[in-house]
Amino acid sequence: MTQVATLQSFIGGRWIGSEAALPLRGALNNALIYHTHAEQIDFDEAVTYARKTGVPALMQMDFQQRAARLKALALYLLGRKEELYAISHLTGATRADSWVDIEGGTGTLFAYASMGSRELPSSNVLHEGPAMALGKSGGFAGTHILVPRGGLAVHINAFNFPIWGLLEKFAPSFLAAMPCIGKPATATSYLTEALVRMMHESGLLPEGALQLVIGSTGDLLERVNGADVVTFTGSADTAAKLRAHRNLIANSVSFTAEADSLNCAILAPDVTPDDAEFDLFIKEVAREMTGKAGQKCTAIRRILVPQALVDAVGTRLRERLAKVSVGDPSVEGVRMGALASKDQQRDVAERVALLAQGNEVLFGERDGFHPVGEGVSEGAFHAPTLLLCRDGMRNDAVHDVEAFGPVSTIISYNGIEQAMMLAARGRGSLVSTLVTRDPATAAYAVPMAAASHGRVLILEREAAVDSTGHGSPLPQLKHGGPGRAGGGEELGGIRAVRHFLQRAAVQGSPTMLAAVTGEYVRGARVQESEQHPFRKYFEDLNMGDSLLTHRRTVSEADIVNFGGVSGDYFYMHFDEIAAKDTQFGKRIAHGYFVLSAAAGLFVSPAPGPVLANYGLDNLRFITPVAIGDTIRARLTCKRKVDRNRTDDKGIGQGVVAWDVQVTNQNDELVASYDILTLVMKRH
Amino acid sequence: MTQVATLQSFIGGRWIGSEAALPLRGALNNALIYHTHAEQIDFDEAVTYARKTGVPALMQMDFQQRAARLKALALYLLGRKEELYAISHLTGATRADSWVDIEGGTGTLFAYASMGSRELPSSNVLHEGPAMALGKSGGFAGTHILVPRGGLAVHINAFNFPIWGLLEKFAPSFLAAMPCIGKPATATSYLTEALVRMMHESGLLPEGALQLVIGSTGDLLERVNGADVVTFTGSADTAAKLRAHRNLIANSVSFTAEADSLNCAILAPDVTPDDAEFDLFIKEVAREMTGKAGQKCTAIRRILVPQALVDAVGTRLRERLAKVSVGDPSVEGVRMGALASKDQQRDVAERVALLAQGNEVLFGERDGFHPVGEGVSEGAFHAPTLLLCRDGMRNDAVHDVEAFGPVSTIISYNGIEQAMMLAARGRGSLVSTLVTRDPATAAYAVPMAAASHGRVLILEREAAVDSTGHGSPLPQLKHGGPGRAGGGEELGGIRAVRHFLQRAAVQGSPTMLAAVTGEYVRGARVQESEQHPFRKYFEDLNMGDSLLTHRRTVSEADIVNFGGVSGDYFYMHFDEIAAKDTQFGKRIAHGYFVLSAAAGLFVSPAPGPVLANYGLDNLRFITPVAIGDTIRARLTCKRKVDRNRTDDKGIGQGVVAWDVQVTNQNDELVASYDILTLVMKRH
Repeated sequence: MTQVATLQSFIGGRWIGSEAALPLRGALNNALIYHTHAEQIDFDEAVTYARKTGVPALMQMDFQQRAARLKALALYLLGRKEELYAISHLTGATRADSWVDIEGGTGTLFAYASMGSRELPSSNVLHEGPAMALGKSGGFAGTHILVPRGGLAVHINAFNFPIWGLLEKFAPSFLAAMPCIGKPATATSYLTEALVRMMHESGLLPEGALQLVIGSTGDLLERVNGADVVTFTGSADTAAKLRAHRNLIANSVSFTAEADSLNCAILAPDVTPDDAEFDLFIKEVAREMTGKAGQKCTAIRRILVPQALVDAVGTRLRERLAKVSVGDPSVEGVRMGALASKDQQRDVAERVALLAQGNEVLFGERDGFHPVGEGVSEGAFHAPTLLLCRDGMRNDAVHDVEAFGPVSTIISYNGIEQAMMLAARGRGSLVSTLVTRDPATAAYAVPMAAASHGRVLILEREAAVDSTGHGSPLPQLKHGGPGRAGGGEELGGIRAVRHFLQRAAVQGSPTMLAAVTGEYVRGARVQESEQHPFRKYFEDLNMGDSLLTHRRTVSEADIVNFGGVSGDYFYMHFDEIAAKDTQFGKRIAHGYFVLSAAAGLFVSPAPGPVLANYGLDNLRFITPVAIGDTIRARLTCKRKVDRNRTDDKGIGQGVVAWDVQVTNQNDELVASYDILTLVMKRH
Repeated sequence: MTQVATLQSFIGGRWIGSEAALPLRGALNNALIYHTHAEQIDFDEAVTYARKTGVPALMQMDFQQRAARLKALALYLLGRKEELYAISHLTGATRADSWVDIEGGTGTLFAYASMGSRELPSSNVLHEGPAMALGKSGGFAGTHILVPRGGLAVHINAFNFPIWGLLEKFAPSFLAAMPCIGKPATATSYLTEALVRMMHESGLLPEGALQLVIGSTGDLLERVNGADVVTFTGSADTAAKLRAHRNLIANSVSFTAEADSLNCAILAPDVTPDDAEFDLFIKEVAREMTGKAGQKCTAIRRILVPQALVDAVGTRLRERLAKVSVGDPSVEGVRMGALASKDQQRDVAERVALLAQGNEVLFGERDGFHPVGEGVSEGAFHAPTLLLCRDGMRNDAVHDVEAFGPVSTIISYNGIEQAMMLAARGRGSLVSTLVTRDPATAAYAVPMAAASHGRVLILEREAAVDSTGHGSPLPQLKHGGPGRAGGGEELGGIRAVRHFLQRAAVQGSPTMLAAVTGEYVRGARVQESEQHPFRKYFEDLNMGDSLLTHRRTVSEADIVNFGGVSGDYFYMHFDEIAAKDTQFGKRIAHGYFVLSAAAGLFVSPAPGPVLANYGLDNLRFITPVAIGDTIRARLTCKRKVDRNRTDDKGIGQGVVAWDVQVTNQNDELVASYDILTLVMKRH
């Protein structure tokens, strides 16, 4: 008898566990591979460590620095990915399945690093503006900020993606400065343990930022409070139990669930078997049925097909499934591996039996199912299984019973309206795919599908080239669906970070709002800059540094010259007769002339720290400028973001946004906008 | 014995109830004023009516039309406000209290009408873009949409604001096309009944859009599902009970709670008794204690004061409270009315007794409390009561026990850090006020307060002029706090409408995304317009109508002339020597020249349907334009919004946003932006 390793939890800054408890077995041959540890975890210690050590360590960094740290972590993990692939094999996954888990996981870190760097400030206050005036004097305004909650995140994960599952929750909560306690499903917790070990070995994690629970959560959930967040991925039943947890309820603890659901793919009525889209549909469904042996929350469980095409789809899918070689993925040619455990194998078999009542089995165990590889007779394999339901309006099981394996049911429909009704019978799902060539069908059906699905994929030949597929959540897009799917939102870009922050409205004078948000608010006190603000290095600039320019009287010659240079001879500038009939009653200067003249007023011509004006936002032309009007501009440093970047020559630079107000001789606002610049650091 | 009216529920399109059940009594003299009805409500009928009649009726309108309907409703109700004031008097409210409820309610309708009109599309799909490329071919992209959920909203309200409470939830859910079932607290349900009766009498409500439950919700919550939303305002205990409701849990029903909490006001250490801010603090606290007899979820319960100023604050508050005349508000000079019921009166008295344990009573019943008016000895009055807690770190009651009446406790603190710790001891509150003159104090303290408060008001002399006060939620700003305050978000502008919609990610080709979102997505098929798109009336324009302009070669003369007209002689355009050292290695044209020349390329000079170019968004300069480069522009109709507006002359107009891409001779994108125009309708 060989000794198998005992997994360890990482709690309070150290690895604990040496005494063996539960045995964990490999999916492919049921061999004993690990034990969980028998030592009790002190969850008071875990929670205290997160609060007292993790929160301060994370708050010593700003959003930009945490984003940079995520990138470094991703690079580190990618460098050691083969170690993870080797362990992932034990879960029954093929290389392709493991790629989704491992490189999908590091890819999510990269994506959050990049989105964080692009969209978050170099502070710990995220301003969700714009600020708005709340009175007539200009002395009172309101806005919103998002701040770290000062609490911790408990992430409870499913067995199917031990790496991606942890990382996709860790990434946004880490950005939000929340220490995490990860709790993987026990069956495959050995892979998560290997990941967390690597993350700690990287030396990149701030102290207390990530703890790991192998085994039960014990009384952990009794110890969280309103500043904390609990997320869960797994079955709808467990989600319901956790959601009703006494302490979570009592403290309004933010709880997010992402549960498996009865996702569907819909072949729209416009597609014929001769269309490329018919092939795309078959391929997508077959891939989703067999990828990860169907153990994906997002897998297609319901295949909605127009009545007339049910047999054609059935035949094509049977052919495809017959070609899928099942077994130990280390055997050449194997395309589908095992379920994660014998428990899962039993569970899937039971549910297939339920689904088979009243429905036809088109393909299954009897169709030549012989897993290949050594010891696989003891493994947790299940045959790809395709069922057919000819009356989806009357059969409840197909909309309710989920076999979490390579199992799917063709459901016949009659007209797109009925297809949408059937799709909604899942009572809330993570994702649906609509295969159609017709934009009008998409415009009709997708908003209906969107009411009960977290994501909708529209597939046709153009999208197919780059399609990431029905089953793949992307960091940029929301993951999570209503109702049965848990009602939660994960991923979806910086939205996910916001879910881990606390939003507050802030009211006060513009000066106070500027101080709190770190962003100049119209009406706030400014610092008249002695030096031209464009001549200051990034470090020397302060939010509120301001320049009121000299003036310029706009003449008819300006309009004429500007028309000549631009080629813009719009009647409002050039046709005295037609301009009389406009709301202004006379010719006015070009809006873009005002913009260009303002630049002429505030530009500092010689080379200096401002490297580029790369964009402009929120331009509004408010009062027209007539011949004889005199304009001037106020330029104020609005926002600085230090992304810790350098240019090719190693010279540091930061992003600076400037508030520009162009006014006329009556102090009326003529034009208002933000300009975006890159500003050099001292070197 | 006079006959009192029996209140009625509005269910399934009709008013029901004639048999008397529970007696309701006036707050001022405990006289019997109404009965609830004895008839059982058929909640199956109510829910079915909302789903089958309400949803389709609301979906026949678009966001813009529903916004316009809200405005009409607000105007109608304002016209009948005196009827509401008359009934409101029975709740014990002063005219000022009723103003908050009645005109605060109609003001919320106006605000949502206006925000909806400004920010929502004239369709039922809200595009939450921008769409993003998800691959290299340009054929696959992703974005998010928000759509009506197809479900209903159950709004369960508190007794203190029978009108505002209903309207502030009705407004955003109505915009989101959700039929509502309103359930006011029974004690003051007569005022909500009067409101709902008026709303129906207006003839402005689509059928099924609003039902009213007088009395118990019976089995209503058993009948909601994942498409529905339940909102609750009231006590933290009831919120916890509802949140754990079996059916809400089982179906992941979206549940939002806004509970009363231990809000605080903090006098910052920088303020001295000689500052105007000291007076502002005293005034704000006194007003919040006595307004609505302290029956506000947002009222100040904890008054955090630097140790050295505790006595000064106590003295000043006592003086102020002593001047507050309590009684029947119809008596001249009365500034504070009654609690809403005898039950409330008992409850407040019990909690004051709890708070008095270990704390000093600085002002209360014994300080000359004699309500004035007829029959007031039977009324539900309670004396303004001020307590003092000298050690807030050791006393739990002051952070936990809420007396929902004119009751507040001064808590001494030592240093701003301790003040922030004490503020957080409320375990999540709706709002805190910080009185300070020092922006640095605000910058330090407000983000900390924001972690445990839904709103933070910074008060000093500048803000005071227009301040809407500590206790007033505003439609534009988030209302709701974490933890004990319920963890929900209400109001906050269009955020609140989003909470009643369902968000879905959508993936597909740009053409499909454009069809679904109603908004042109880069890469989507365009319609090369035979007629110049600027010459089409609003109705004739289609999203995707596009113009590819003629070309223009940029010469050195253009740069010279543009410098002359604008006055912008930046070295990158004019200094051959310095320009060599830039990343471009040579002189480039002004960005604003490119913008102006693009307008020259696509403008249609003669008068036409395009009335104004009023703004520009998301301008990015991507590739520099050098001397000799040849540029052209593509102008594509991106988005149309019909706000159903007309100009002074009665000519209709709509908002049209145009996508502009300026490219060079290599088809590289040079500049990218949206321009915003007003376009005339046919007339």
